[in-house]
Formats: sequence, structure tokens, C-alpha cells
Amino acid sequence: MWQAIGAVFGSWMNDRAIVYRRQYGIPHEWGTAANICSMVFGNMGDDCCTGVAFTRDPATGEKVFYGEYLINAQGEDVVAGIRTPKKIAELQKDMPEVYKQLDDVRNKLEKHYRDVQDIEFTVQKGKLWMLQTRNGKRTGFAAVRIAVDMVHEGLITKEEALAANRIPPDDLNQLLQPIFDPEAKRHAIKEGRLLAKGINAGPGAATGRIKFHAEDAEAWVHRHKGKPDGRVILVRRETSPEDIRGMQAADGILTAFGGASSHAALVSRQMGKVCIVGCGALNIDYAKGTVSVGDKVLKDGDWITIDGFTGEVIAGQVATKPSEVVQVLIDKTLKPEQSKVYQQYAELMKWADAARKLKIRTNADLPGQASQAIAFGAEGIGLCRTEHMFFDHIEPMREMILAYSKEERKKALDKLLPFQRADFEGIFKAMNGHPVTIRTLDPPLHEFLPHDEKGQQEMADRMGVKVQVIADRVKALHEFNPMLGFRGCRLGIVYPEITAMQCRAIFEAACNVQKSGTKVDPEIMIPLVGFLRELKAQAKIVHETAQAVFKEKGVEVPYLVGTMIELPRACVVADQIAKEAQFFSFGTNDLTQTTLGMSRDDYGSFIRHYLEADILPKDPFQSIDTDGVGGLMRIGVERGRSTNPDLKIGICGEHGGEPDSVKLCHKIGLNYVSCSPFRVPIARLAAAQAALAKS
Amino acid sequence: MWQAIGAVFGSWMNDRAIVYRRQYGIPHEWGTAANICSMVFGNMGDDCCTGVAFTRDPATGEKVFYGEYLINAQGEDVVAGIRTPKKIAELQKDMPEVYKQLDDVRNKLEKHYRDVQDIEFTVQKGKLWMLQTRNGKRTGFAAVRIAVDMVHEGLITKEEALAANRIPPDDLNQLLQPIFDPEAKRHAIKEGRLLAKGINAGPGAATGRIKFHAEDAEAWVHRHKGKPDGRVILVRRETSPEDIRGMQAADGILTAFGGASSHAALVSRQMGKVCIVGCGALNIDYAKGTVSVGDKVLKDGDWITIDGFTGEVIAGQVATKPSEVVQVLIDKTLKPEQSKVYQQYAELMKWADAARKLKIRTNADLPGQASQAIAFGAEGIGLCRTEHMFFDHIEPMREMILAYSKEERKKALDKLLPFQRADFEGIFKAMNGHPVTIRTLDPPLHEFLPHDEKGQQEMADRMGVKVQVIADRVKALHEFNPMLGFRGCRLGIVYPEITAMQCRAIFEAACNVQKSGTKVDPEIMIPLVGFLRELKAQAKIVHETAQAVFKEKGVEVPYLVGTMIELPRACVVADQIAKEAQFFSFGTNDLTQTTLGMSRDDYGSFIRHYLEADILPKDPFQSIDTDGVGGLMRIGVERGRSTNPDLKIGICGEHGGEPDSVKLCHKIGLNYVSCSPFRVPIARLAAAQAALAKS
Repeated sequence: MWQAIGAVFGSWMNDRAIVYRRQYGIPHEWGTAANICSMVFGNMGDDCCTGVAFTRDPATGEKVFYGEYLINAQGEDVVAGIRTPKKIAELQKDMPEVYKQLDDVRNKLEKHYRDVQDIEFTVQKGKLWMLQTRNGKRTGFAAVRIAVDMVHEGLITKEEALAANRIPPDDLNQLLQPIFDPEAKRHAIKEGRLLAKGINAGPGAATGRIKFHAEDAEAWVHRHKGKPDGRVILVRRETSPEDIRGMQAADGILTAFGGASSHAALVSRQMGKVCIVGCGALNIDYAKGTVSVGDKVLKDGDWITIDGFTGEVIAGQVATKPSEVVQVLIDKTLKPEQSKVYQQYAELMKWADAARKLKIRTNADLPGQASQAIAFGAEGIGLCRTEHMFFDHIEPMREMILAYSKEERKKALDKLLPFQRADFEGIFKAMNGHPVTIRTLDPPLHEFLPHDEKGQQEMADRMGVKVQVIADRVKALHEFNPMLGFRGCRLGIVYPEITAMQCRAIFEAACNVQKSGTKVDPEIMIPLVGFLRELKAQAKIVHETAQAVFKEKGVEVPYLVGTMIELPRACVVADQIAKEAQFFSFGTNDLTQTTLGMSRDDYGSFIRHYLEADILPKDPFQSIDTDGVGGLMRIGVERGRSTNPDLKIGICGEHGGEPDSVKLCHKIGLNYVSCSPFRVPIARLAAAQAALAKS
Repeated sequence: MWQAIGAVFGSWMNDRAIVYRRQYGIPHEWGTAANICSMVFGNMGDDCCTGVAFTRDPATGEKVFYGEYLINAQGEDVVAGIRTPKKIAELQKDMPEVYKQLDDVRNKLEKHYRDVQDIEFTVQKGKLWMLQTRNGKRTGFAAVRIAVDMVHEGLITKEEALAANRIPPDDLNQLLQPIFDPEAKRHAIKEGRLLAKGINAGPGAATGRIKFHAEDAEAWVHRHKGKPDGRVILVRRETSPEDIRGMQAADGILTAFGGASSHAALVSRQMGKVCIVGCGALNIDYAKGTVSVGDKVLKDGDWITIDGFTGEVIAGQVATKPSEVVQVLIDKTLKPEQSKVYQQYAELMKWADAARKLKIRTNADLPGQASQAIAFGAEGIGLCRTEHMFFDHIEPMREMILAYSKEERKKALDKLLPFQRADFEGIFKAMNGHPVTIRTLDPPLHEFLPHDEKGQQEMADRMGVKVQVIADRVKALHEFNPMLGFRGCRLGIVYPEITAMQCRAIFEAACNVQKSGTKVDPEIMIPLVGFLRELKAQAKIVHETAQAVFKEKGVEVPYLVGTMIELPRACVVADQIAKEAQFFSFGTNDLTQTTLGMSRDDYGSFIRHYLEADILPKDPFQSIDTDGVGGLMRIGVERGRSTNPDLKIGICGEHGGEPDSVKLCHKIGLNYVSCSPFRVPIARLAAAQAALAKS
């Protein structure tokens, strides 16, 4: 009576299963229609079986019939996992007639639903009964392959292929990140090597030796360069800007504290590093050089493995393999024609680019990152931070901070100028005429000074001053709430010579690169502006420096001056600020912190509770808080364009690579989003989905 | 040719003076028309003189002709101060005819300008020449007296008497605060005892012995109670909630760091204490117990004097006297009929109350503060903080914070309940049926724990736990940006039992007081709400607790549940929040910090530069930033009333007592402002001025 002829019965069957479940008191965990119905049918013989199958391989997307069945089985047996099921291909031998029938149904179902189906069936005395069908869950790899194949098969349109329910943009990640050999990981967990679970902050798979200090990580990698032994996981309570080089050297970063937008998470994502943060179960003892969970203790140099997709931390090594897309685009160790995965990825991206309205830029501070991002399809740099340049040349930077007169400060800045210029030249060359948005110095100065006695003593020795001088300056720069303190354009307002030096470096670099025949398109971005007069004061320095350099160099380069919009005030008075700004770039990290009054370094103490109690629907540092932060952005866009209709507006917060946030940006009329290099493909797809969405 | 007949020539004369200044190359610092014109007239004899006078006494407002003149004098002599001028009354003897003429002009001028005039004149060979007239600058005392007198004289209307250009509301302060004996202060400065200048954060005059620690201040005052020796100035780098009792004991507070909205400034103003903050020239050495400026060193126990009107810090004692208004209203040591100043103040306030639309409430945490505020005309409490109750009973509070289970936490909270209940009973009784807005616990928990080793050891000994337990908890509660951390309603969301205990204390107290025959009107206010669901969750606890207590007590009391609006998000989604809130109260301190991304504890490093460079017109923590914070408030009011048209809206930030901010609150349609007790009269006057303003 309910034998399935076509797919149309699928959902009805599912309802049926629920009815039977209630009627026969079948426990909920037996879940599937197959289990239930096989129970209902009662005892079976060799001409009976129960099975589940996918119309295509849900792991790879290959067009093969994929599934399992059990001869003479009841639902109970399937659930219990006592007997090993057979692969669906064998049904062809066991029951050729039934197999043909099933294969027929498989094709009909796919045609009807125009998507991969996850089906359940039972065979009673040689007669096939279809129990259920539904769209099949699939990996990112399969999602891309299936979508692309189905377009080629004429089953769906390109627009349908791009739809979010077929390819959740985040799933693209799987095509980009190194992945574990699934068998090896399963094995490790079976051995009881799973230590703990943290927040999956940077997707991917990484195995390496434990190092607790950035310097150690850097030194170790340097010593074992290129050898399998040279892989390091940097394990820390939390990370800070001083750890940058160590993080760059490490394969993965694991922290005990911090959330999905902590320093570790942000930097990792930008670097494309595997990262787990906020793994509270870890007990890290820097003094002893150990990390423990319960009675399991690992020490400095031991192997550890982290799964950035799931947040799992595993003791010892687990085998990984690199992504084919990265091998083609970045490592160039594989040719496009050698990789089916790459070809499918590339085709999908081409369709996405044709559909989207938003431009996609990247957040990149180094030429290498910039080139990576270009390979991933970035159309410019939306945020080039200049901090790392100061960290890389920390001594003159520290001289600058210790200076007590403008003259001394200028002398130190003069030492920094050539380094900054060289850095900018590298970036302009890598970007080859694409726009480069450069943010002037942003972090509070105390971040550049050592806070521990030992570090201060070392600095004092190196600089030939008394340690007390340094301790005093650190104390004077101490802030109760550094996030709301002396940073951003406030630095450039109080010390205009810093902005002047940075602008000189930018324009000298731009002129030099343009003279060498490469186009340049610099955009100077002033951070943390809340008042029109702040922007005016800083823009004046930019324009004056530009004119001076152009005169010296005998060439001119095009440039823009704009501002970050990262304070609620800037959104509210955007009409005033837009009179001076040539572009806006929403800094949604800081805008989220100030709008919600929530520090991303401190929200760990309550955010889990908030998410569990459903007070917040999503982590606002992962996905833009639509009503609050999004509401202010809307006000900012409307008011900004009210006085400057042609205002170019983008976003350069970490949210720029998060699909829902990209969709919000499209909706409120932004021109571009900017995100870390490895998020660029995801943003491209999300932007296409936003443009294709009906509402 | 330019002899003045009437006052109409005043401004023309002033222009003339400028012309002559240029023509004769008279240095600018000789400024006044009198100087210049007497020079122009050249040599003079005994029938010549030059003088300046006020039509009434500009210091007291008394209706007497007030001024000075020099016989046979040139402008030069007047400026040089070589000769001592005569009082204007003596002119009656020296030149009776001229005096009569001048007195006549005086009356004509006042009638014409309907305000006190500051006139300059010269007499040439017995002939009076009027050189200039303009509205006279006056003290707060004079401003009130002149305005009230002129109404009685029929010269101006009551509305005109209230005008801001006649009585700047802040000048009322002078009628409320103890003041220095002007002669004594002049003398002290002449002696070279002026040490430094800081930010005048709490108006008034205070002299006392230097104490560097809150406990020392408290102990000293306790030991010398009522004796002149018992006065203390608490001198600190900065203050924190732990210092509250010491601040209460001190006559004045002086800090080296912090701005006009630092903890020291806020608490002082609420307590009505004289206060100077951010006096960077002070070098405080806690270890040695000294404060020095250059080579001048004062030590613990030495006398120091601070002028909260001007920010001046003076070594040694300077004689002060108490305000008459305070003697009548608060101290009751003077009867109204004994004080002319009080009578004038009271009359003016009556007119102001009739004119204003805004209700005026007060921020008060203690029954004493509440009674003071009522005496000053407050119509309710707009902010009753509950923190101090926890500080007063710190041990069970600390037990609560150390508790690792809900049960333990509840046990500690049970100990706190009777104290809180008693506190609320005191406040309800003092307020006698006026509304009392009580804010649930707001500050981060780490503020209640000792941060130094010694304090932690003491706490450990008292509680019978290992010191490491306490150190660990302090470490765990540490935050990078506590302002944006685990505080406000976030505490009550994660630990609902805290909110429940506080509500129980409030409702038990309310029922008890109502039963004893005194009306009560509690309003429970949830702090730091950003999301509707936060308010819903907390309101649920309030309502449930209320119902439980009403049942137990067999009575019901009226009450409201509302929220602070102190986050930009709350303004933007005010339409959502207003569905649950029965009232809004803008917390403009925190709203300013988040909207501007500016910590009031840290903005000292750049705010002076900002004000000097005119990037900010005013200190945003003193006067509401009209476009930014005011813009968000406007959005909050509009959106809030869009879904809840009857929403009662007030403000309880420190801005509630600042005249320009009060005017903004009137303009955007608030129902009330709330400010510290000593600012209540100022707010009443400012509210009247706002209501009477044309635009």
C-alpha cells in the first residue's frame, strides 16, 4: 500500500515513520524510517534486506550509487552495528532485479528533486519498498562537485548551483585547508588520545611539536626548516602582538583562553593558520613547560594535533594532507589540469564572480599574504595594518615611544621610514595596481613595550638607559581600558609626526613603484575617527605630505583619504564625516565591541551562557549583530551618502569573510567587503548568494 | 563731542576706545576705555579723575553704587596700581555735583539695560564724561540677588530673572558650597603657597590634613571627630570603590590622575565633596608618605588646601566659611528668616519650579543623601546604586564571589539579604513616597576582591581558605577591558540568584515600610541592557520575586521595571526593548564611553590636547556630546516611544546636573533628569531655562 513508485512519497514516508514510531513505542534514537519499518514488517529471510543509500557519494560528490544494506536485518540490527553491512554495489549480485529497480528509483528521485538524495529502503520477500528520501548532507568537496556536475548534466542552472542550501559558503573552507586523513584521526580517538575540545577558530588540520613561547617556536622551526620535525603547535594561555613571529612560524595555534575573535583567532585566520582558542580544559604551566588535562600531561617538544574544523585537541601525531586548491593556486606544486577538485572550484568561482555585486578585498599586511589573496580572487587590499612593521623594527619604535621631545621622536621615526617604505613597496608591487587601503598606526603604544621586569631590563641594556626609565614609561602608558584609550587616530593627533612619517613612507614607495612601471592605487585610512575634526586634522597631514613627496619625486600618484567607521559616534555623525572622507570602511570588530559594550578579550566569561540561554542568537564577533551593529551601519551608510552620494563604503572587520555578514553588507549597499586571504573564496560565494537572493 | 548723555553710547564708546588704542599705539593690556581716554585727555588736575564702577555690588548683589576712582590720574596710573584708588562713595565729598550726575546716569543706565552695568568714566575740569557701559560680570551670589531684587523692583519679569545670561546655572554652586575667605586665599598665594593646578571636579573650598589612604583618613577623622584638627584631604594617585568610606570621611579629595568623570570626581560630586582631580604635577609617593611638587614636599598629616572652584592646590591652611543655604536646608543651624541669601535662593527656585517641564531627581545611595536631595528640591531618586551595600558588608559578598556552586552562592547571599533590606527601608522612609529607582548590581566582581598580596592574605586568614584560592579567583576575574566585560545585567543573567536576592530585599523593605504607614514607589532598573532578552530574563525574576514577597507579606506595593540605556545598541533597538521596559534611564557616562570609544579613566592622556586643538568643543564627560551621544539618545527616545508611547524616560548619568545637558534632555523630550544632591538646584534652574528658551 505504501510502496514507493517515485520520489514524491518521500516526505509522506517520513511522516509514516513517525506514526509507526509512536504506535509501536520505538525509541527515538532508532531514528530512521528504515529501522522502524523493518521492525514493523517483522521477521525476514534471505530475500529481505534493509538499506540506506545516497544517489551520489556524499564525501567526494562522485556520481556513484553510495550506500549500505543488511540482508535479513531488522532496524535493531542496523542501529546496534553488530553486523557489518554490505556495500550497495553488491546488491547487484545479491538481488539483480531489485538493484535495477532501486537504481531506477535513484535516477527518478534525483531528477525530481534536482539534488542528491539520501534514501532508505527495505526489501520484503524480493519486493522493494521505498521508506524515505530527503536531500543528502554532504561535505564541502561533494557540495562543489555535485553542484558543478549537475549544471553540466543540465539538471540545474548556474544560479541554482550557487545557492546557499547547496553550498554553505563556509564549507568551501574544506577545499582550502589541509585535512586529516580521516582513518588516521578515527584511529587516534579510538586510542583515547582525544584530550579536550575548544573553539574552532581557524579551520584546518595541524600536527606539530608543542612550544609554549613564540621565540621557542620560531627558533625550533628555524632549526628544523623543511623537515617533518620542524612543525610546531604554539600552545599558550593567550597570544599578544609580541607573539606574531612565533605564530607565523607555527603550523597551528592553541590557546586556553579567548574567544573566536581573540588575538590568536584573528591573526590565525588572517595567516590561514589552524587555530583552536578558549580550550579551557587545558592547564598550561609555563614554568614547568607542561600542558595537562586531568592526569594526562604533555611537555614542551611533545607532539600534539589540533583539528581546526571541530576544535578537537589530540595527543600525538595524526597524518594530514594539503588541499589541492592551495597546491594549484598558492604552492604551484600541482597544475590545474591535474586536479579535478581545483577545476570544479574554479568553475564555481567564475559563476559566483559573474553573479555578485560586492567587490571582494583582503586584509593583508605582507606581500606574501597579498599575493595569496590575489590568487584566491581578491580585488584589492581593504586593510593593510602597519603595526607589524613597527614590531619588526621594534628598537627605533621603542626609542620613539621613550622620546620626550618632538625632535627626539622625529629622529627615531626617521630610522623607521626606510623600513616602512620598503614594506609598502613590496605590497604595491604584489598588488600590481589593485587598490591598497593602508591604515595608519592604531594600537596603543604600550603594546610595543615589554611589561615584565626581564624584558624591561633587556630593553634598558640594549638602549643604554636605566631600567626605571622604561618601567616609568610603561606605568605612564598603562590604561584601565586600553580598548577605549589612547590609540587609533588619537596617536596621530597628539603626535602628528607619526602620521607624517607613515604618509611619507607610503607616498615615497608609491612614487618609486610607479616609476618602475607598476601601477599603484593607495588609499590612506585613518582609524578610530569619531569627530570630523579628527579626520580633517589627519587628512591635512596626508595631503601636505603627498604634495611634498610628489614635488621631490617629480611624479604624482592617485590616492584617496578615508576613514574607518568603527565607533558608534562615527555612524551617527556619518553625514559630517562624509564631507571630508573619500571612503568609509566599517571596522566591525571595534564597532561590535563599542556598540555592545563587549570586549572580545573578556566576553568569554559570559558568552557561552548567553548563547546557551538563547539571549544572543549568534556570537556577535563571528557574525554581525544584525539589529544592533547592523542597525548602526545602516545609519552610517544612509547618513554618509546623504552628504556624499558617491561615497565608497566597505568593511574590513573579520566579519567581512563570514557569509551572513557578507549578505548584510550587500543588503545595506556596501561596495566591498574585505577579509583574510583564505576567506576570499568564501566571501565571493556569499556575495553571489546575496545578489541572487530574492528578498 | 563724545560726552555720554545716556547709556546708548556705551558700545560706541567701546569702539572708540579701540580706535584710540590703535591711533595712539596704546598697548592692548591697558584694555579699558577709561585708561585710554584718560591718556587721550592728557594731563589733569585735582578737578580731574578716572573711575570704574558697578551700578550694584557685583560680589554680593547689594543695591549700592560700587567702584573706585583716582583723582588726577591717567590710565597709566590706574593700570600700574601704584596709587590706591578711592571708594566711589568718597566722590560725594570730593565732587558732590559730579557724584550726583554720575548717580543719575547710573540709574538711567540700569533702567535702560535692565541689568547691572559696569561703567567707566572720567572727569575733566569738573565735567563728567561717560566712557563705556556694559552688563557687569557678577558672582553667583550677586546674580541671584540682583535678579530677585530687579523682579521686586518691577524692572524685569520672573522669566527674565531666570534667564541663563543673568544666572548661569553653575553659578548657583557658589550659594551651596563652603567658600574661602577671599582675603585669606589671596594672602596664601602671595606667600608662594600655591602648589599646582588640577581639574576642578567638585566645587567648594576645603582645608585639611593630608592622608594618603582611605583607612587612614577614616581613622583620623574618627579620632578627631568634631575638632578642627579632624579635617582631612584624601590625596591619592586615583581612587577606587574601596576608598568610598575614606572619601566620605574626608573634607576634600585630591588626585594626581583621572579626569572630570573619574571615580574620584563622580563620587565627590555625589557626596558634595570638594574635589580636584588629574593634578599631574603632584608626585605622590605612598611608600614614603609624601606628595611633592618640584622641591616642595608635604608629608602625611601636613595641612593642605584645595579650591574646587578653580582647581588650585595650596600648601597649609586657608580659612573657609559654610554656605548659608546649606546651613538653612541641611544643617538647620540657621533659620530661613536669618538668611537673606537663602530667601533669595528660595524665591528664585520657586519661580524656576513653576517654569520647568522636566522633573528633577537625584542620584543617592544612602538615606542621608536622599534627605539632602529632598531638601534641595529633588522629586525622587533617579539612581540608587546598590554597590556600596556590598562594600559595607564585604565579607559575605566575597564569600559569594568565591562560591563554586549555586548553593554556596545562595548561602552567602542570604547573609547579605537583611543588610540590603535594612538599607532599602532607610531609603524608602527618607523618600516618603517619592519614586526610588534602584539599579541592580552593576560593577565587575573583581572590584570586590583585594588585588594586592597583603590584602589577599588577610582575606584568606579571615575566611579560612588558602591564599592561592583567592589569588586564583582574582586572576580568573581579571579583565583586559573591565568596562566592556562581565558586569551590569550580565552578572544577573549568569547568576540569577543575585538579582533574586536584591529584588527580595527591595520588596520586603517596600512592604515593611508601606505597612508602617509610609508610601513607597520602587522602580527596579536593570543595568547595561543591550538585548531585549536580557531585560526579559531579568524582569521575569523581578516579577516572580515580587509576587512571592507580596504573598508572604500579605500586601502589595506598586512597582515598575525598567532599564538603563547606556549602550549604543540599546538606543538602536530601543523599539524592541521598550516593549518590555516600563521606563528608560539614559546612563550617559557609559553611553559616552561606548559611543565615543573613550574611557573616562584613560582619556586624560589626550583630552587636553583635543580640547586645546578644538577637536572637541567640550569635555564629553562633563557636558553631553550633542551630535554623537545626543544623536543616539534622540534615536533611543524616538524608537522607544514608537512601540511604547507612554514610556517614561530619564537620565541618571552625571550629566543630569550639567546645564547644557539638562537643556538637551528637555529638547529631546525626556521626563526627568537625575543628578547628585548638590546639583539638584542647578538642574532645577537649567530645566526652567530650557523650558523658557525660544528655540
